[in-house]
Amino acid sequence: MDAKNLLKEHVSKIVTLTDEQFEYFFSHFKTETYKKGQTIISEGQQVDKEYFVVSGCLKSFYVNDEVKMYILQFAMSTWWASDYAALYNKTKATINVDCISDVEILSLSNNDREKICKEIHEVEHFFRWRTNRGFVASQKRLLSFMNNDTKTRYEELLVLYPALYNTVPKHLIAAYLGVSRETLSRLYNASKPH
Amino acid sequence: MDAKNLLKEHVSKIVTLTDEQFEYFFSHFKTETYKKGQTIISEGQQVDKEYFVVSGCLKSFYVNDEVKMYILQFAMSTWWASDYAALYNKTKATINVDCISDVEILSLSNNDREKICKEIHEVEHFFRWRTNRGFVASQKRLLSFMNNDTKTRYEELLVLYPALYNTVPKHLIAAYLGVSRETLSRLYNASKPH
Repeated sequence: MDAKNLLKEHVSKIVTLTDEQFEYFFSHFKTETYKKGQTIISEGQQVDKEYFVVSGCLKSFYVNDEVKMYILQFAMSTWWASDYAALYNKTKATINVDCISDVEILSLSNNDREKICKEIHEVEHFFRWRTNRGFVASQKRLLSFMNNDTKTRYEELLVLYPALYNTVPKHLIAAYLGVSRETLSRLYNASKPH
Repeated sequence: MDAKNLLKEHVSKIVTLTDEQFEYFFSHFKTETYKKGQTIISEGQQVDKEYFVVSGCLKSFYVNDEVKMYILQFAMSTWWASDYAALYNKTKATINVDCISDVEILSLSNNDREKICKEIHEVEHFFRWRTNRGFVASQKRLLSFMNNDTKTRYEELLVLYPALYNTVPKHLIAAYLGVSRETLSRLYNASKPH
């Protein structure tokens, strides 16, 4: 499916826009393509866009002073990504977003989102529900991180992102779970069918 | 400040409503009072309301099979609380919300929120920004949980909720940080001015 139809289908799951409204909405997005390994947002940068993933996979992550990487989120087709703290508060990025594979994304600036939210009530409704879902997913991940053991979190990850184990390098899955690569290997081998 | 003026001031930080619009908005809220220790949401219940805290303090928490408590959030005056996963997805509660002190809250049903969001565009805008902020706070807490040591998280907590250390029992602060009460005492003593 091309980028425009993918976004249209995605939006129409939440709100009904007329063709004219959708064309106007879509006119604010820009198609961008990146190669595997390229960076989209770097810590310390100004952030003024958010990204709808058309194809490929992004990761948002943080690297601490000891050069240990923590992965906040993977984003595949129809997921959204940005440093939302920086985007909403107009502060500098505290996380990074880069490309795990070649990707195609649609970018939307903060100003344009606010403009079309104000112009079209249904668009504001769409973005409210998009954020509601993000908030719920984030709370769920936090609770899971606090409570569950690594095995349970690994199994939850496979439910949330079924395609992940074949798409994403193992060291990144380990960084998402907050475990070593050796621990991940043990979990993977233990969960394989015999 | 009474409940109505507190909510009015809170909303007016994000959007401008006419007096008539605010009266209509406010007419959908109900005042509820609870005593310290009373439960507002219990795991397994239907959830159909969210709560704006007028006075007092709530906690949202989860208790696992080993009866260990994890605190997701404290909510004091002008904060909102609910089991949002259950509220938005119309599923049963997976967390609990109860009262750390006597509280006064304004409740709003899910149906009424959706109705007034549809009727008044500015109200939809308000709730979008409310959730945006919640999402950002949740992401920040997740990253902090993944990355920071207990001492840093303790210091962040005191910045986020300055009044907390005098309001909330120590064992609840320990449950928020995911540490034992003994560890918390060491941190507290270490951070006291000499």
